[in-house]
Amino acid sequence: MVADNRPVILVTNDDGITAPGIRNLVEAVRPLGQVIVVAPDSPQSGMGHAITIGEPLRLNKVEIFEGIDSWECSGTPVDCVKLARDIILHRKPDICVSGINHGANHSINIIYSGTMSAAMEAAIEGIPSVGFSLLDFAYDADFTIAREVAHTIAQQLLTVPAPPNTLLNVNIPKVTGSDYKGLKICRQAYAKWEEEFDRRTDPRGRNYYWMTGKFVNLDKGDGTDVQALHDGYASVVPIKFDFTDTHMKAHLEESWKQILG
Amino acid sequence: MVADNRPVILVTNDDGITAPGIRNLVEAVRPLGQVIVVAPDSPQSGMGHAITIGEPLRLNKVEIFEGIDSWECSGTPVDCVKLARDIILHRKPDICVSGINHGANHSINIIYSGTMSAAMEAAIEGIPSVGFSLLDFAYDADFTIAREVAHTIAQQLLTVPAPPNTLLNVNIPKVTGSDYKGLKICRQAYAKWEEEFDRRTDPRGRNYYWMTGKFVNLDKGDGTDVQALHDGYASVVPIKFDFTDTHMKAHLEESWKQILG
Repeated sequence: MVADNRPVILVTNDDGITAPGIRNLVEAVRPLGQVIVVAPDSPQSGMGHAITIGEPLRLNKVEIFEGIDSWECSGTPVDCVKLARDIILHRKPDICVSGINHGANHSINIIYSGTMSAAMEAAIEGIPSVGFSLLDFAYDADFTIAREVAHTIAQQLLTVPAPPNTLLNVNIPKVTGSDYKGLKICRQAYAKWEEEFDRRTDPRGRNYYWMTGKFVNLDKGDGTDVQALHDGYASVVPIKFDFTDTHMKAHLEESWKQILG
Repeated sequence: MVADNRPVILVTNDDGITAPGIRNLVEAVRPLGQVIVVAPDSPQSGMGHAITIGEPLRLNKVEIFEGIDSWECSGTPVDCVKLARDIILHRKPDICVSGINHGANHSINIIYSGTMSAAMEAAIEGIPSVGFSLLDFAYDADFTIAREVAHTIAQQLLTVPAPPNTLLNVNIPKVTGSDYKGLKICRQAYAKWEEEFDRRTDPRGRNYYWMTGKFVNLDKGDGTDVQALHDGYASVVPIKFDFTDTHMKAHLEESWKQILG
């Protein structure tokens, strides 16, 4: 890659390098700097923060986005960010953008999401980072508004100095035209998935299970990402990766006194 | 499984059902209730919060721990917890214990760790939950102190009412005898991995990469898990899964005013 004076923008995702979502993201950020793409060679949805340590990684240069240096990787989204930093760029990109995911990554979905884990890995590295997800699973989803949102936020990250370790979880509602209400800063809703495993029997008579489930929002409070999306806003949740529960820490220091060293 | 009046203790891990660490954990908690084991059928280290959605899951009953109902699962640690809850128990266990991991899961390792992701999945389900990790990668590591720690903390969770959504990240130092100083409630240290990819060439002349790296503690402050372990304590970090950065949220609400809806 020939470096120039423009900011370096690393693009990745979890749906794989051929997904329409990443193509839309490349187009959204292309005017803002020198874009490089390092993305999985196959779908990696639900991979969370998995890394590949038990087998080797492949990294191949591919011609897929015109005028954009691009690599596909055999590993997870987190692997892609690590390889981009260490093998391809040999420096930190100025920002990292991940997505645009086909499907929601609001609330608790952040921990299952390869899209968000790639962004989180970049943030741990000190790279201002954001994951984008559209509330539409369809291959041919309409990314018009999502692309505008991605452009606006990437531009903001490049022009307004962000706090250290900035990591944003951005979700875009499935709306069009004036039903879209703009950006809203939110908190993560308290929600969970209720699984329903679909049990089947294979031709040899042995059981197997498909994981299915439904998303349940348990959070009726104000200011959540789920509520904002319902109201037609794109939700922006700032995320941290210090997971210490400081409230419970104080509680345990008191209530567990007898068993502490 | 025949239910009795004892508390139900779900045991899982990420090193796989045949690892010495899970055997030690089963022995540690066996006196405290009715133990069931649901664990991966192969090593799943570094799987983070991955779930299996693109392929079906297998779940097989196995005889491996005397007198303990046990299942091995083809999926990730998180899958194991979901299947245990929905397919085997049809109820929440009273607590979930994960580990004992062969190797550290302190500080940032929590996000890469299948051990901790299994515990986190249980906590999201509302099950008081804890992951145990010993700072020794060896297959034949000495689990004596780790087993005592696991017993003490599991007993504590079963007898002292825990706050809702309790999730603990417990790491045990590689020490013996009086070098072990007891339990300490800590916060997550700010740390990261510096990768060094080992590039090799296969017999067909194509490159591949092994991920290696070294752990770097960037946190010189007081009260971290890394420091406590260094001082001979077992570290106990209470973890939450609302990842909202409330400080940055306030910052963005102010500094991003012009682009908000």
